[in-house]
Amino acid sequence: MASKVEARVPRGMRDLLPENMLLRRYVFDVIEGVFESFGFEPLQTPVLELAETLMGKYGPDAQKLIYEAGHKGGKEELAMRYDLTVPFARFMGMYGDLPLPFKRYQISPVWRAERPAKGRYREFYQCDADTVGVASMLADAEVIAMIFEVLNRLGFANYRTNLNNRKILSGLGQFAGVPDAQLGGLYRSIDKLERIGFDGVREELTANDVPAEVADRLLGLLDVRGDDNRAALAALKGELADYAIAVEGLTELEDLLGYLEGMGVATDSVAVDFSMVRGLDYYTGPIYETVVEEPRIGSITGGGRYDELLGLFRKESLPMTGTSLGVERIIDVMAELGMVPPEVGKTVTQVLVTVFDASTQAASLAMAAQLRREGLNTELSFDAADKLGKQLSYADRRGIGYAVILGPEEIAQGQAAVKNLASEEQVTVAQEAVGEQIRRWMA
Amino acid sequence: MASKVEARVPRGMRDLLPENMLLRRYVFDVIEGVFESFGFEPLQTPVLELAETLMGKYGPDAQKLIYEAGHKGGKEELAMRYDLTVPFARFMGMYGDLPLPFKRYQISPVWRAERPAKGRYREFYQCDADTVGVASMLADAEVIAMIFEVLNRLGFANYRTNLNNRKILSGLGQFAGVPDAQLGGLYRSIDKLERIGFDGVREELTANDVPAEVADRLLGLLDVRGDDNRAALAALKGELADYAIAVEGLTELEDLLGYLEGMGVATDSVAVDFSMVRGLDYYTGPIYETVVEEPRIGSITGGGRYDELLGLFRKESLPMTGTSLGVERIIDVMAELGMVPPEVGKTVTQVLVTVFDASTQAASLAMAAQLRREGLNTELSFDAADKLGKQLSYADRRGIGYAVILGPEEIAQGQAAVKNLASEEQVTVAQEAVGEQIRRWMA
Repeated sequence: MASKVEARVPRGMRDLLPENMLLRRYVFDVIEGVFESFGFEPLQTPVLELAETLMGKYGPDAQKLIYEAGHKGGKEELAMRYDLTVPFARFMGMYGDLPLPFKRYQISPVWRAERPAKGRYREFYQCDADTVGVASMLADAEVIAMIFEVLNRLGFANYRTNLNNRKILSGLGQFAGVPDAQLGGLYRSIDKLERIGFDGVREELTANDVPAEVADRLLGLLDVRGDDNRAALAALKGELADYAIAVEGLTELEDLLGYLEGMGVATDSVAVDFSMVRGLDYYTGPIYETVVEEPRIGSITGGGRYDELLGLFRKESLPMTGTSLGVERIIDVMAELGMVPPEVGKTVTQVLVTVFDASTQAASLAMAAQLRREGLNTELSFDAADKLGKQLSYADRRGIGYAVILGPEEIAQGQAAVKNLASEEQVTVAQEAVGEQIRRWMA
Repeated sequence: MASKVEARVPRGMRDLLPENMLLRRYVFDVIEGVFESFGFEPLQTPVLELAETLMGKYGPDAQKLIYEAGHKGGKEELAMRYDLTVPFARFMGMYGDLPLPFKRYQISPVWRAERPAKGRYREFYQCDADTVGVASMLADAEVIAMIFEVLNRLGFANYRTNLNNRKILSGLGQFAGVPDAQLGGLYRSIDKLERIGFDGVREELTANDVPAEVADRLLGLLDVRGDDNRAALAALKGELADYAIAVEGLTELEDLLGYLEGMGVATDSVAVDFSMVRGLDYYTGPIYETVVEEPRIGSITGGGRYDELLGLFRKESLPMTGTSLGVERIIDVMAELGMVPPEVGKTVTQVLVTVFDASTQAASLAMAAQLRREGLNTELSFDAADKLGKQLSYADRRGIGYAVILGPEEIAQGQAAVKNLASEEQVTVAQEAVGEQIRRWMA
């Protein structure tokens, strides 16, 4: 066979151990429960796409991070998915006869060759929910309502969703005299606001032929606030009344807020922020991101409307909108801050049936089978030569809660000793009552 | 943005639509439930491995099918996993301090550039369960017992597990005078028995310097049967008494059968078959595959013991054994033969709340929120301008069971009409009793 190699994983990748997997399952179950409660259906696209499907959709910075793939003699240029949105648009391009509206979610890994750092992986899960075929802002409102419900159920209390609209940004571009084809550059400059400040952005804008006086007024508009969201929207509407596209975007946000109120969503967690851009090229309408403020973990969702993307894969586009939940960060933070409900546990195994010696192994085998039939996750000690103490300390290290001890004496009397490993309580009961005893302790 | 491209997926890959996803979830839940009932923990390795981790582990034919991957400027040679076993051995090589025995399962996709065909995909899921650190045949017996339990729960009644042992094959190699280093070639010849018959295999063996007379005796031994498994094992033990490695392998199978009986497993579904090889290079002990005979869908599990593989990733190896379940074939067959339990359904959505017109939209929004709070998966019609008939026919096409109708009259009286779309029954109830009415129909 092959020669020895060092056991390691690629840079930025990792194994997910059982305790982490149980936490992930808990989080995914919550997310799926919320998404399905709104009628979003599960869907899965393949990991590999044709390279031409992905290329040119994300902008130049993102595209550099895409993994390519192939096999010897293969004639197709393949790439690993970078997000779940473009593959979903490709999917919709192939399934023109689905009943519309179509709402789907997908919880799947994506690959990006970013510089690895704490909490930043090159293979990581995204949870996306998107609606196809709906122009109404109700679809956007549903997505935001779902995110809030997920965060509430997971125990995150203090968060804020920032709201903007690419149509407003486009109107601001017209205001600044930036041609449509160069809007991407304007967005990238605005996106740096938090990092390089107003002066830095002004410098970039003037370097790109925006007159200094216009740049100043533009930056002033990005900073428009009001006593509340509706006041801020009204104020900017006044300033940009001459730019139809901006007015359209502002009206959409008013509608969106109205739907959220109608759904009973706490809109004090929503803040319009005209300087928010979201990196990806394909957005066309409302954009939103959710920032968890306490604990301070930054942006954990990003989403928005992308009514043109599907048009790249079929004759006519359809409106699409949705969000992506940064679930890895949520999972990391929950583990770090002890936000994991105790019932999630660190092992699936509930009971260890020990083996006294070779002569009693058959009785232990039968006991394990009995407990499994009763619905208890049951492990059986493999090595009849292992001392009981060693078997119990294994159960302890694994975090198993209960052990069953079947010595020759117990067996002769049709009994078994049952031990609660947390409380160290031990009782002897009839063999058929072992499961009942453990369930009583569990409850 | 980018130019139009044709919407398609790579060869041999596919999208998994909601109805298929719901069936998959059902099947995976059954498998996870059984695996966890035996104390197997969930674990997940990354899709990408260092190429050196995978290369040289599967044999030359398999290795050609591995997908390579990388990104611009990346310095590592990467490959997509070909199975779940080698990555698991690599994992065990990195985590030397895990409590042993360690039992894990993984349900994940793997990639193989095979020629696509009906039911054969290039991206497909495997379900693996493996035990590390146990030399006892009890670990192998557990794995076989789990497979039987999974098949029973999924509704497959007629299946057979074929059992052999690489040690027996190795003893047969010694018998035929084949040097250890050339055993792989001998296995590949034997593996073709079903396809090319005894004459074909004899020809291959003699072409590889096995004397014709020895080849004939070898082929005779491969065909040893008895009235039952134990008789067959005893018969071959007599023939190969001079080959210690064969005797060891035969004794292991006797032990394995004993454990299965002790666990209450129906061993009439187990058949020793000395001509079964299993393709992969890394097996060292018992090997097994399960064939579903009715419906006739062929081999759906493959597994065995591979006590040396881990030694390629760490100083000293540890015994490992386990199985891989060909879950795609199981899912395809269940869908084709109507073996899907009716409760799996074709949509997650239970209720559609219709919208009468713009003036009643708020009431429908509130009703949908109410039903979600009560735990019903509820969709809300997006377009208030759509006629009621169009909304109901959408529910019908989606397979949604119940619809709520809130006209101005019902709203004025605090009521709602609830419609059972299967039976066409419609009743008017108080708004707060809508969920109760639907649950009554469901039960």
